[in-house]
Amino acid sequence: MKTIDSPIPPLKIAVVGAGALGLYYGAMLQRGGQEVHFLLRRDYDAIRQGGLSVKSINGDFHLPKVLAYRNSAEIGPVNLVLIGLKTFANHQLVELVKPLVAADTMLLSLQNGLGNEELLAENFGAGKVLGGIAFLCSNRGEPGSVHHLGEGRIRLGEFAAGLTRRATLLAEVFSAAGVPCQAVEDLLRARWEKLVWNIPFNGLCALTGKDVTELLRHAPSFTVTREIMREVVSAANAQGLSKPLAEEFVERMLEMTLRMDHYRPSMMIDRQEGRPLELAAIYAIPLEQARRQQVAVPRIAMLHGLLELGEKDR
Amino acid sequence: MKTIDSPIPPLKIAVVGAGALGLYYGAMLQRGGQEVHFLLRRDYDAIRQGGLSVKSINGDFHLPKVLAYRNSAEIGPVNLVLIGLKTFANHQLVELVKPLVAADTMLLSLQNGLGNEELLAENFGAGKVLGGIAFLCSNRGEPGSVHHLGEGRIRLGEFAAGLTRRATLLAEVFSAAGVPCQAVEDLLRARWEKLVWNIPFNGLCALTGKDVTELLRHAPSFTVTREIMREVVSAANAQGLSKPLAEEFVERMLEMTLRMDHYRPSMMIDRQEGRPLELAAIYAIPLEQARRQQVAVPRIAMLHGLLELGEKDR
Repeated sequence: MKTIDSPIPPLKIAVVGAGALGLYYGAMLQRGGQEVHFLLRRDYDAIRQGGLSVKSINGDFHLPKVLAYRNSAEIGPVNLVLIGLKTFANHQLVELVKPLVAADTMLLSLQNGLGNEELLAENFGAGKVLGGIAFLCSNRGEPGSVHHLGEGRIRLGEFAAGLTRRATLLAEVFSAAGVPCQAVEDLLRARWEKLVWNIPFNGLCALTGKDVTELLRHAPSFTVTREIMREVVSAANAQGLSKPLAEEFVERMLEMTLRMDHYRPSMMIDRQEGRPLELAAIYAIPLEQARRQQVAVPRIAMLHGLLELGEKDR
Repeated sequence: MKTIDSPIPPLKIAVVGAGALGLYYGAMLQRGGQEVHFLLRRDYDAIRQGGLSVKSINGDFHLPKVLAYRNSAEIGPVNLVLIGLKTFANHQLVELVKPLVAADTMLLSLQNGLGNEELLAENFGAGKVLGGIAFLCSNRGEPGSVHHLGEGRIRLGEFAAGLTRRATLLAEVFSAAGVPCQAVEDLLRARWEKLVWNIPFNGLCALTGKDVTELLRHAPSFTVTREIMREVVSAANAQGLSKPLAEEFVERMLEMTLRMDHYRPSMMIDRQEGRPLELAAIYAIPLEQARRQQVAVPRIAMLHGLLELGEKDR
């Protein structure tokens, strides 16, 4: 294994949680020359036999030879664990990651919401942990295939420190592989910024069965969306961020979303397809953080309560 | 026509909006000896041919001869207009009622929510208008038949005055016909009391597709329900009622509803059957009254916005 301080790839990378996100980033990194090991379930047979196809807005490509595994002990220690696991499966995360960890291993969670880095830090030490926010529209195709529909950039940062050399180098590894990536000083701030989008759109679309365009084209639900975003900003700004989020950020997110064409957030798809929702990472933990700082977030709490009610069907 | 000051029935009564509520109360009044004229659409043929059947928890009965009409001009002026029209059809109300009105006619709205008495008062004079809150579980069966599933009592009062002799007598007419009925001094207070139930349960059940029992058995949605009820109480108590609603009233309503067995509120049924929702009477007008008094009602506003979004499908 190379260490990240070395300027020369390849790094040995393991992808844990190889859904639409993990498969896409893993494929990009492999195409960019990294040594990528995929921990697979659903796609194992298809990828062993036929490799991995990426159908991308930036051009399709196919990786005929992919290192595919059914359990992480076969992979062994790596330089970087790229974690794309859905957070409702986080009870499995520690067991999945454990065999991949050596003294210098970096654990990068690209999962949604809050609480993921904390879980890794508790079990493997805070110094190993980084987090990233993925701005990616992708979904799984037939086994062995992933669709990249839009964006793809990542903002990543240290869990327990500011801007480090390894975070900057890691961002360069992604960028060199065609994934625009920026290292940030304040990971928590980046996570809350993303929550300003995720909290309203994931939940409202999952609850109502409407996509983001339908939601925003209707004045009363546009207003609800904006008010929930403002609650997230208030909660975020009580968390001791390096720099507060501006009220104006809400308007930028709304405008950005108005330009999307009937996008269905992941939680809406999860509900439509009968999967669990990522309620802890996107709602329960942020709500707990808001309450700890005594920020009133009545609309987020209501949305969370009604989403949980729907989980009773499962 | 007798006037209401006469102690001797029968009164000439017209039922406008002969759905589950109008058919049930009209049938009870006719069985009790009043002269009841039904304005009908869906049930006209069935009732002309076979009369009206009531399947009731208190015992079934059948009225073989029923005065049925297709338009209110055929009925002419009456002593009492009993209005059970769904409020989303209120744009038709004035035309339907006009031919029934003479100098002494009483107009009794048993409709849901706010704004109905105001509409009648503007068009026919406030002195003619009474309102009633019906605590009734009923639904329509096949044409010519109505099912009475529970309760049935009415609280009624004057729109523009306190407790009057005619309101008291009218309550006696209902009671004598087997409909427990109480005349109240403060109609507005009674309407808001009913909203403490209607605003949370109608909307939350319509939005989530869960009945009241499912809603209350789940702790997070129980909490949402209670918080919405508290918002209604705050809004009510800013309306200059004769006596404020107690916080404890919320707990009584919750306990009462916990004793219901998977009851589906009317708005939930309306949505499931593809009908419009009574959003103006139960949400928009109460919200406007709350805002006019600067009472914060974020959860009610959110619920209203999300219910309206669903109306876009219709």
